[in-house]
Amino acid sequence: MLLVLLFFVFVALLFALIQLIFIVKKEKGAKDIQKISKNIEKGALTFLSREYQVIAIFLLVISILIGIFNVRFMISFLLGSFFSLSAGNLGMRIATKNNARTTNAASKSLEEAFKIAYFSGLVASIFAVSFGILGIILVGFLFEIKALYFFAFGASLVALFMRVGGGIFTKSADIGADLTGKIEAKIPEDDPRNPAVIADLVGDNVGDITGMGSDLFESFVSSIVAAIAIAVSFFKSIYTPLIIPSLGLVVSIPISYFFMKIKDVHKKLLSIFISTAILLSLFSFFLFEKNLAWCVVLGLLAGIFIGWNTNYFTAFNLPPTKKIVEASKKGTALNIIYGIANGMLSAIFPVVVIALIILLSFWLAGLYGIAISAVGMLSLVTVVFASDVYGSITDNAAGISEFCRLKEARKRAELLDEAGNTTAAIGKGFAIGSAALTSLALLATYLMAAKKPFLNIADAGNIAGLFIGVVIPFLFSSLALKAVVSGAEKIVENVRKQFKNAKILQGKLEPDYEECIKITTSSALSSLVLPGIVVIVMPFIIGFLLGKEALGSFLVGSIASSFLLAFFMANAGASFDNAKKYVEIFEKKKEKFYEAVIVGDTVGDPLKDTAGPSLNILIKLMCIISLLFVILF
Amino acid sequence: MLLVLLFFVFVALLFALIQLIFIVKKEKGAKDIQKISKNIEKGALTFLSREYQVIAIFLLVISILIGIFNVRFMISFLLGSFFSLSAGNLGMRIATKNNARTTNAASKSLEEAFKIAYFSGLVASIFAVSFGILGIILVGFLFEIKALYFFAFGASLVALFMRVGGGIFTKSADIGADLTGKIEAKIPEDDPRNPAVIADLVGDNVGDITGMGSDLFESFVSSIVAAIAIAVSFFKSIYTPLIIPSLGLVVSIPISYFFMKIKDVHKKLLSIFISTAILLSLFSFFLFEKNLAWCVVLGLLAGIFIGWNTNYFTAFNLPPTKKIVEASKKGTALNIIYGIANGMLSAIFPVVVIALIILLSFWLAGLYGIAISAVGMLSLVTVVFASDVYGSITDNAAGISEFCRLKEARKRAELLDEAGNTTAAIGKGFAIGSAALTSLALLATYLMAAKKPFLNIADAGNIAGLFIGVVIPFLFSSLALKAVVSGAEKIVENVRKQFKNAKILQGKLEPDYEECIKITTSSALSSLVLPGIVVIVMPFIIGFLLGKEALGSFLVGSIASSFLLAFFMANAGASFDNAKKYVEIFEKKKEKFYEAVIVGDTVGDPLKDTAGPSLNILIKLMCIISLLFVILF
Repeated sequence: MLLVLLFFVFVALLFALIQLIFIVKKEKGAKDIQKISKNIEKGALTFLSREYQVIAIFLLVISILIGIFNVRFMISFLLGSFFSLSAGNLGMRIATKNNARTTNAASKSLEEAFKIAYFSGLVASIFAVSFGILGIILVGFLFEIKALYFFAFGASLVALFMRVGGGIFTKSADIGADLTGKIEAKIPEDDPRNPAVIADLVGDNVGDITGMGSDLFESFVSSIVAAIAIAVSFFKSIYTPLIIPSLGLVVSIPISYFFMKIKDVHKKLLSIFISTAILLSLFSFFLFEKNLAWCVVLGLLAGIFIGWNTNYFTAFNLPPTKKIVEASKKGTALNIIYGIANGMLSAIFPVVVIALIILLSFWLAGLYGIAISAVGMLSLVTVVFASDVYGSITDNAAGISEFCRLKEARKRAELLDEAGNTTAAIGKGFAIGSAALTSLALLATYLMAAKKPFLNIADAGNIAGLFIGVVIPFLFSSLALKAVVSGAEKIVENVRKQFKNAKILQGKLEPDYEECIKITTSSALSSLVLPGIVVIVMPFIIGFLLGKEALGSFLVGSIASSFLLAFFMANAGASFDNAKKYVEIFEKKKEKFYEAVIVGDTVGDPLKDTAGPSLNILIKLMCIISLLFVILF
Repeated sequence: MLLVLLFFVFVALLFALIQLIFIVKKEKGAKDIQKISKNIEKGALTFLSREYQVIAIFLLVISILIGIFNVRFMISFLLGSFFSLSAGNLGMRIATKNNARTTNAASKSLEEAFKIAYFSGLVASIFAVSFGILGIILVGFLFEIKALYFFAFGASLVALFMRVGGGIFTKSADIGADLTGKIEAKIPEDDPRNPAVIADLVGDNVGDITGMGSDLFESFVSSIVAAIAIAVSFFKSIYTPLIIPSLGLVVSIPISYFFMKIKDVHKKLLSIFISTAILLSLFSFFLFEKNLAWCVVLGLLAGIFIGWNTNYFTAFNLPPTKKIVEASKKGTALNIIYGIANGMLSAIFPVVVIALIILLSFWLAGLYGIAISAVGMLSLVTVVFASDVYGSITDNAAGISEFCRLKEARKRAELLDEAGNTTAAIGKGFAIGSAALTSLALLATYLMAAKKPFLNIADAGNIAGLFIGVVIPFLFSSLALKAVVSGAEKIVENVRKQFKNAKILQGKLEPDYEECIKITTSSALSSLVLPGIVVIVMPFIIGFLLGKEALGSFLVGSIASSFLLAFFMANAGASFDNAKKYVEIFEKKKEKFYEAVIVGDTVGDPLKDTAGPSLNILIKLMCIISLLFVILF
């Protein structure tokens, strides 16, 4: 069985390497394209290397603390963080190297540009998923099952910093650039005269690739680890949780090739998603007993439903977003209120669906069923992350072509980017849903490890724990949002200062791009520490003061509220974004209410790209830490 | 004991009648003052009478359904709704009759105006609280203890419609008036040329008086009923839960007189609050055993802490709100994001404090302790509601004096109104906190009636129930916010249409005020039905499909999320409001960012006055319905 799994991973990695060689042979384009692409890469690497320093401190302190108890656990922890960091770093390099090639291809052909962007994404995704599977096999073989928790912990801790740090960076830069460029100076997006424009493009990479990648990597690893742990205690095969994701990895390659024929970009991406899900469902009925196969299918269905729900509430051609546009015609405030209300409504259905999945998969196969549903959902991760990286590359390509004044390339890149936005929104929903299911699986593992089959919330201590748990996602979101505001304020100040030199806006003098990157970097990194400490410390406080049962209730409260809040923020943000796009496409830009939709878009930015996604990590990490709390003490 | 209680109520009512006679003798002022005051009263009564028709249908259907099971329960239910309706109606009449007197007094003396407004509020409050106590005694004597639940249910159902309907009315009118008046036509607030101005003033009354009044009335009644029910099953005196609130009623009168000497309006109101709390704490140590007295003190302390917390995060001269102003200087969107972040942060502390209160009061006296803490907190209700009505009267007085171009009166009325805003914000926090404690007490009663001493959320059905419970407040808020947007949109359309006649803006032609009142009324009432049905039906669905234990978990989830969301929305809204006030007072109105704070204020309006407060009713009502579900089936 193990050999089959390793063979799958080997095939996928081989394909990725060959594909990479093909892509590297493509032309990089004119000098100015290459120059800005280099600048983006340099900026992203500067940010990452400074972020690594912060992470290193946390890794050092925590690994010493773990090492005191158990050296093997410490090694697993370090391996988990190392694999996650490598996957992110590699993905980022692949993306920033190929945005130039995509731009260059886009000046000639839509299909060629799509292929470069999508297969770059797929290669990055295959590396990440393979690293996850290999890491689990390695640690599982070298050490005991419990060491896997520490592998997951390492991945989780890295994800915290990557997701939150990247999220704060990307939105501080984006908002700063928009407020000064689009609103104050009335110059277009991605205009080279704007000093914050490179920081903004860097942000797309550190937010959507290293941030999103580490998030999905962690969900992927943790859901498998939780399922293995439950499998062990119910005397089931420990390979079952590894089979479906490995199949998802391999299957994504032929499916991607097969659907390259479809012309429409949207349809192409969606077909890849859905065919992968169907194929994986069929396989699981061949491979597993019926009840388990149904759990896999439930997980896949939940993933698809959540995607559909996100699309319905956020797509710019559907009623909910159109109504935001209507409201904006009567005033900026109504635009915001309606968007908030729309986001709230959109969050309801995914939570109810997850509640149903819990009921059904528990009925089918007990706690193990819930874990297998999570794994089933995450077996889609290869295609989801591939299209996420694709989105970030095409977004960069659109930016670069505007920057280099390549009109034809800009048009095509925008078309590709627009399709990427839809899949990015779906991917975000998928990340939230999978984080929730993963956390529930981890919670089940926690309860087993703590030997607490009951969590009685009709008890004062436990209900207090639950209430405090519900609060934490609000605290975390508040800190993340404040960090974005303070970063954006600094960017606004700097850009206003640079614009005082009239030559910059006239296009006669190149602005100081690096200064903006520096400001955003240090602002994002300094805002990272407090939320990081909160997440790590809270489970210990609750566990020591109120006991293990209250800690379980605390986790339930956190999962419930964070999950809901994350969907609310992600979807509200995406619908604000698309309301703006609707106005740009179908209404006249000079209308008064264009400013209203821009304000909405900006409000939505940190909701959907900073605070919302950060919550995914929050709950998974707190669940893992609680698990360690039980094992270590 | 009963006679002592009745004596207390009698004394308070007697005082209220005498005071009313005194107030009625005051001059009503010039004809134009009287005319607009009449208009406000007429508008409010029109809205109320149409709202009564909607309520009547619900009352009829539900009382028939209850009557099938038990006629005494049906009578109790009708009595509960009748007492609540009468208290609200009386309060509204007192307020709308005396806003003219307050305006007239304000043109001469600040103190005189304060006295009229405050004592009108106190009289209205005494009527409401007395009705509550008398109703409980009446039903408790006529029928059995269980009938009291139906009394509370009646009060709760009325509160739902009053709070939600009033909330939608007041903010649709307010936002519609602001968007067209302040932003589009650039005329001042409360300007008589604005067709929506009277609707806005009517809104203050139906939102803050009948809405807030019925909310507090319900909390008050339900917390006492829950405490009596628990007292009965633990063989404690059923009078204990009635004593402290009755004392609170009587004590408020001399304290109010005593502090009239203080000049500063803020200090005057705060001194009344705090002295009442101190006096009640002292009394409870004389009257009850030590542990119970501490529970009362804990409830009072929680009330005061929540007030302090609200004040800190929302007062315009303190750092959190000042930072919103700073953010607005860099862009409208940053203003909104920072306000949201501030609201989220502010919600954390009250929830943690309530968690502590649960722990401590349970430790002191078990479930009964939690119920007594709720009663203790609500014994402040007389002064809280009095200052709430005061705020609405002074707000109206400020509006009327602007309307009648009385400069001196306007200045004084604004001063009074400003102090009223602080106490209104504190009162809102108090209403949320007391709703949470009341719901917990009701939940405890539910668990006793359902004979479920355990709520195991490590069970698939129960965790599913909890997740769905967490979702409901988001659904409810979304519906409320959408209703406000659609009402405001209609007002904007109507005002834009009226403004097409240039004579209106020139002040040569009186606009059609009534049309705006009609539009808001029908919009508010038609939006009322769906959320009403959701609240009533949900507990039955969960109870039938998932069972009584899952219903308990559902309630816990709802209480936790609604409570947090309510604080978030109330405080975010209040801080947006005060950021705008800060700019109006300390910065130049013509600054660019003035528009940013107006947008923030408008976004905050339905959060703090519609969606936020509606959640109070939501959770109390769902708890009561679940209780009935257990008793009736």
